[in-house]
Amino acid sequence: MSPMKSGHPAHTTCGEDLSPGDRIELCSYTISTDDIVKFACQWDPLFFHVDEERATTEGYFGGLIASGVQTLAIYQRLTVDSFVQHWDVIGGAGISDLQFRKPVRPGDILTGSTVVKNIELQPDRGRARVDCFGELINQHAEPVLVLTMSAYVRMRST
Amino acid sequence: MSPMKSGHPAHTTCGEDLSPGDRIELCSYTISTDDIVKFACQWDPLFFHVDEERATTEGYFGGLIASGVQTLAIYQRLTVDSFVQHWDVIGGAGISDLQFRKPVRPGDILTGSTVVKNIELQPDRGRARVDCFGELINQHAEPVLVLTMSAYVRMRST
Repeated sequence: MSPMKSGHPAHTTCGEDLSPGDRIELCSYTISTDDIVKFACQWDPLFFHVDEERATTEGYFGGLIASGVQTLAIYQRLTVDSFVQHWDVIGGAGISDLQFRKPVRPGDILTGSTVVKNIELQPDRGRARVDCFGELINQHAEPVLVLTMSAYVRMRST
Repeated sequence: MSPMKSGHPAHTTCGEDLSPGDRIELCSYTISTDDIVKFACQWDPLFFHVDEERATTEGYFGGLIASGVQTLAIYQRLTVDSFVQHWDVIGGAGISDLQFRKPVRPGDILTGSTVVKNIELQPDRGRARVDCFGELINQHAEPVLVLTMSAYVRMRST
């Protein structure tokens, strides 16, 4: 990553550079048992995320599943790697309509896309609010996560 | 944690045991620079989450701030520790109206509360959908995260 603020380097995407309908395909992430257990031990230690045996015998899904927060973290990492690292981001604003559609299991290969839905230029604050629809799908092309995420991105002209 | 499914032990909270207005105070979590950088290196490696010097000189907030996904992960961990470990949870359903209200900075002490907003019993599916309003505040009593999170909880009677 090269500097993102001073002088807005030409390769940095600012609020004015985005348009509704812009679509970005994400890279992919393969999740392992170890990934799932490690994340959940720290952030979401429910038995069906951390204890493979109990998850299999007692869990609703018949086996270990990833924490929903980890599924969101994977989406975030894929967006940073795929495009957000090139945006002049101020910070996140929020998330709406996030749905965990299918469980994420060890060995799943996740990928997906992000589509810019709406841009609200706020030149008096030097920023644009950008709302994006995002989707993560598994190796069977089943959506596992859908959401709308909003962030503030600097404007070039201010 | 003791077994949560077989026979629904008396101390396990099922869908029928919850009522709108039920309120739970959360434990607290103090976040360090190391926490912020470690999490973000793996899941959200934007410069203002991982590079203290650049965050200070180029970041909008004048210093390192936590990934929003990590703020959500902290909320999730506090809810598991405070009450969700005693609920007969099937899994998460989704999140709506999540807002990152204030940046979370190194040294911040986060705590908060969860209030049950709505319960939809689905006895034909042996579950209840439970919608909870949650809030995390910092040591200045400023909300940093608000959200509504929904989960499926088993019903005792099915």
